[in-house]
Amino acid sequence: MLKNKNSSNKTCVILGLDPGLADTGFGLIEKRGQQVKIIDCGSIKTKAHTPFNQRLESIHLELTKIIKKYQPDIAAIEQLFFCKNAKTALLVGQARGVCLLTLNQHFLPCHEYTPLQVKQALTGYGKADKKQVSQMVKIILNLKSLPKSDDATDALAIAITCDHSLGNKIYHATQT
Amino acid sequence: MLKNKNSSNKTCVILGLDPGLADTGFGLIEKRGQQVKIIDCGSIKTKAHTPFNQRLESIHLELTKIIKKYQPDIAAIEQLFFCKNAKTALLVGQARGVCLLTLNQHFLPCHEYTPLQVKQALTGYGKADKKQVSQMVKIILNLKSLPKSDDATDALAIAITCDHSLGNKIYHATQT
Repeated sequence: MLKNKNSSNKTCVILGLDPGLADTGFGLIEKRGQQVKIIDCGSIKTKAHTPFNQRLESIHLELTKIIKKYQPDIAAIEQLFFCKNAKTALLVGQARGVCLLTLNQHFLPCHEYTPLQVKQALTGYGKADKKQVSQMVKIILNLKSLPKSDDATDALAIAITCDHSLGNKIYHATQT
Repeated sequence: MLKNKNSSNKTCVILGLDPGLADTGFGLIEKRGQQVKIIDCGSIKTKAHTPFNQRLESIHLELTKIIKKYQPDIAAIEQLFFCKNAKTALLVGQARGVCLLTLNQHFLPCHEYTPLQVKQALTGYGKADKKQVSQMVKIILNLKSLPKSDDATDALAIAITCDHSLGNKIYHATQT
């Protein structure tokens, strides 16, 4: 639900996701006017020795809790065209599928961004390395230190990309 | 729910799945004593121009309907270690993740079989080709003709593999 939809001081909560079977990073930012601030971030972890279908269910249940707790208005996820190899792609794909289904079940519009778009949005440079991107996450969100989990940082970067990409249109994009 | 759990004429319904984004094959067989017969088979289709997350939701909803209608006792799915390429793996992975989550949400135990196991179970020969496998599906299930959809045939082959693999243990495997 969009908060203060008709006031001049509109706010919008963006949920960024970086899906993975062992670690699904999540990052929530709030956009108020032209300002953004962090709300929460972290990583949904599943254990290697847990049966595979239970790991997927765990991602679904934890993500559902996060959505219910923070009531985001919009979601963003990385658009993947390739992975290191097909085995990794298959594992990431299954976690990603579960995330997308969960977002859809909560009527959350989801925008997808390529790694190139994330790098350009945060650093202005499509060939920026991981460290440059994470430093920009720290600066933009005015963090004292980066999250412990790289996946959480990546999820915040995707949420920021969504904000940059949609600009003020974000307030309309969430009016479903 | 297992039918006639304590009678000598036990029955067990097996749901085989062959996940894909555009076509998810499903095949239901009933094992009664040592006999198997087909109950239903088909393909859950999603259209290429439908938004991606809606395609995943559609697979989830259709599969849920099938589970509610036929109340299978056990499910079987192909275990994939590799795909033609990472792009295909990512697409198949997302559909597969949605299928596994749906099965788990209905407390359906799911067994996984490699393509080699499917070929061996149906033809006794690990290097059998697709045509030999589908002909054995036709013979084992006493079908007049093969299903129109290759994915439905593959799903039936996986259900038969589950039956062959578990034998009479299948009646215990489903007693959750």
